[in-house]
Amino acid sequence: MTGIRTQIKDIYKSPGKFGGEIITVAGWARSLRAGASVGFVELNDGSFFKNLQVVFESQKIPGDYSLISSQNIGAGFVITGELILTPQSKQPFELNAAEIKIEGTSTPDYPLQKKRHSPEFLREIAHLRPRTNLYSAIFRIRSLASFAVHKFFNEKNFIYVHTPIITTSDCEGAGNMFRVITDGETKKERENFFGKEAFLTVSGQTNAECFAMAFANVYTFGPTFRAEKSNTQKHAAEFWMIEPEIAFADLDDDINLMEECLVFITDYILTNCKEELEFLNQFIDNSLLERLNKTANQKFSRITYTKAVGILEEAVNSGVKFEYPVKWGMDIQTEHEKYLTDKIFNGPVFVTDYPEEIKAFYMRQNDGDDDKINKTVASVDLLVPGIGELIGGSQREERHDRLIDAIKNKGLKEEDYRWYLELRKYGGTKHAGFGIGFERLVMYLTGVSNIRDVCAFPRTSGNAGF
Amino acid sequence: MTGIRTQIKDIYKSPGKFGGEIITVAGWARSLRAGASVGFVELNDGSFFKNLQVVFESQKIPGDYSLISSQNIGAGFVITGELILTPQSKQPFELNAAEIKIEGTSTPDYPLQKKRHSPEFLREIAHLRPRTNLYSAIFRIRSLASFAVHKFFNEKNFIYVHTPIITTSDCEGAGNMFRVITDGETKKERENFFGKEAFLTVSGQTNAECFAMAFANVYTFGPTFRAEKSNTQKHAAEFWMIEPEIAFADLDDDINLMEECLVFITDYILTNCKEELEFLNQFIDNSLLERLNKTANQKFSRITYTKAVGILEEAVNSGVKFEYPVKWGMDIQTEHEKYLTDKIFNGPVFVTDYPEEIKAFYMRQNDGDDDKINKTVASVDLLVPGIGELIGGSQREERHDRLIDAIKNKGLKEEDYRWYLELRKYGGTKHAGFGIGFERLVMYLTGVSNIRDVCAFPRTSGNAGF
Repeated sequence: MTGIRTQIKDIYKSPGKFGGEIITVAGWARSLRAGASVGFVELNDGSFFKNLQVVFESQKIPGDYSLISSQNIGAGFVITGELILTPQSKQPFELNAAEIKIEGTSTPDYPLQKKRHSPEFLREIAHLRPRTNLYSAIFRIRSLASFAVHKFFNEKNFIYVHTPIITTSDCEGAGNMFRVITDGETKKERENFFGKEAFLTVSGQTNAECFAMAFANVYTFGPTFRAEKSNTQKHAAEFWMIEPEIAFADLDDDINLMEECLVFITDYILTNCKEELEFLNQFIDNSLLERLNKTANQKFSRITYTKAVGILEEAVNSGVKFEYPVKWGMDIQTEHEKYLTDKIFNGPVFVTDYPEEIKAFYMRQNDGDDDKINKTVASVDLLVPGIGELIGGSQREERHDRLIDAIKNKGLKEEDYRWYLELRKYGGTKHAGFGIGFERLVMYLTGVSNIRDVCAFPRTSGNAGF
Repeated sequence: MTGIRTQIKDIYKSPGKFGGEIITVAGWARSLRAGASVGFVELNDGSFFKNLQVVFESQKIPGDYSLISSQNIGAGFVITGELILTPQSKQPFELNAAEIKIEGTSTPDYPLQKKRHSPEFLREIAHLRPRTNLYSAIFRIRSLASFAVHKFFNEKNFIYVHTPIITTSDCEGAGNMFRVITDGETKKERENFFGKEAFLTVSGQTNAECFAMAFANVYTFGPTFRAEKSNTQKHAAEFWMIEPEIAFADLDDDINLMEECLVFITDYILTNCKEELEFLNQFIDNSLLERLNKTANQKFSRITYTKAVGILEEAVNSGVKFEYPVKWGMDIQTEHEKYLTDKIFNGPVFVTDYPEEIKAFYMRQNDGDDDKINKTVASVDLLVPGIGELIGGSQREERHDRLIDAIKNKGLKEEDYRWYLELRKYGGTKHAGFGIGFERLVMYLTGVSNIRDVCAFPRTSGNAGF
């Protein structure tokens, strides 16, 4: 049975408390070098980004000195000794070992030798890469960002609902869903476990709406799936989404909640992951800290789609070159997003009221668009520097007849939306919601540019190892 | 845009703060009755288990009185008025309406009329059932229990890792996995999106172990799947699991963490869901509160499997009848679990050190079992009254050679566990972990006996509606 252990995190938090004390730590050697009589271990215990320097001397552990000296990087140790404060030197303290127990040896072919490795190489050893500085920083930030999400909504009295992963309906008519089958003998058996065709969800939104009509303020946070064969830096086949849904709320309420939520999470990471952010700012993205500090402290800009297109048209007129032609009705492309966030607004910007044509059926038709041209919906995308679209949301169409029209206009079948339509029949109030792609959020928070580097074990086209 | 709203939760928390004030609330009518000049609405806004009584008078809203009176149950309203404290009467306060806006009408065929409905009927309308007292209580407790899980591990500096849902390996060799395919033309295309056969995960454990060897203390909390056609009250095809994994830890550490975790969550629910638990105790399970209070305050019992079998054998000798014969080597059946928790220990009990034969390959062989008969592994199940097995865990086999033997002995292929074995090669320390079926936990916390009633939209054999 384990005795009392000290976490390295706690030592960094209050070195004075441990200075001169005999403590026991347990962790892994990130590096190990030893001379004839003195050796050094950089020990990491996973509790903190930084290592603890351990000094061991042949004089103090004569029986074990050569055994410890001969251990390989990656080995696990339990070490007891006195914590010596060394305020004058580069390391603020070190552990002077009185006893070192080997808890798990490592072999000389350990792939994480002390040198820089490429992300491509490290993706090949996804089971080991969390032991590196880079992935240690990323996955701690991912963990704390998850907690910040739950904390934010919990403090606002939102109900967290686990919407289903296996679904028999396709909310957005988005296609490209994974199909779920069993290993029955016949095709019918294989496909009929649930009594109908089953898929992996692309969004928890419609289910969350049911709960919003009961609890008013709800959110889901769970995995979603897209079976798209695109091989980009931004797309994975499996990713997590945060999807709040709020009743008695319109698009403005939705935008306010988005901003508050993003600021809260950013602020939480700035406060709780200082060492990780400093590392990432130094080695991955030199503008990271500046960008996050801005996000936490700056009021986000807001603009309508129509005005955004106007700005882009002006840009074209003044000689800016875009690959995709700019005109009302188009989807705003990555190059346009970048121009808006980096050149015009110099920070996050909400773009609202997109053309109905290019948005999903459930988004609320804006009033005053009854002339049937240039119809828009109460939708919003949050564009952020470096990422582009980070959050997408809308006020939902709560009017039963308009929703039926929208379903038909998009070529969907009314009967597939029976229960969704019933929400409008039985006390369906105005309501709104949004979706944050959690991996994109982690990319935003870390400066990492490839989604494969923010997923513990990424699933992309051609890749589902580990 | 929405004005300032008061949540009913806040009124119940501090009525004195709102008494005599003009406030605005937004919610849905759980009941509505009106006479010639006075009407009453029981308004629920989802922020709290209890309703707010609203009084409306023809004198105060003469233009709207008949329109409001004629609304159906389920309608959504935004109501402004004075909160009147009524400490003498059954309701501690009521809202005297000065203005009522209809935010969403309801139709007379609204299925949730004010009468008792069977759970079977309510499962048919899973999109509406969160609006009832029972499901409102269940899903709020589910939400708060989720938060308690994250809070518990966050406070202990655990890293939350999102282990993958789509997997190409079957950790437990458990079989009965769902298969994930795409809609390609040929079978090869259909099955080859990821370059190999893909399934839905049955457990995040092996992936969590990778992270435990980097961060020491980690957990996953996400959906898992079993394609079993069993149609019981306790099994769903999709359910959430909490799976912590701790390095430098043995079975005792594991058991201590389990107990601490369950006590924390139970205590959190007892503190934060008083009204919901009172309701459930009254209408669903009269022993609920007593049981939860015991869990939160009583030290859990511990016993080895071998001793448990001894107790059961004694019981048989003294005339107790079991359906399944009792002998060393058997799986402990529900009837045995019940006997142990209800008759012997009168509370939760950890049963440890099961026969190797009936447990998974990754569980650590106990030392001192080298005689090759009656071999046991460092495993543990927590049995609780009313549920049976609530948590299962083990110390993991960290010895590379022993793990290879165990894989072979279970008829599994060594090459399928390449990266899992590498964890033992590169600094693999002793470690342990456990899994809590989250739905079972919610059943334990609510007294509800059917898993279909604790899932927002349950997925079981033959059923994946909504």
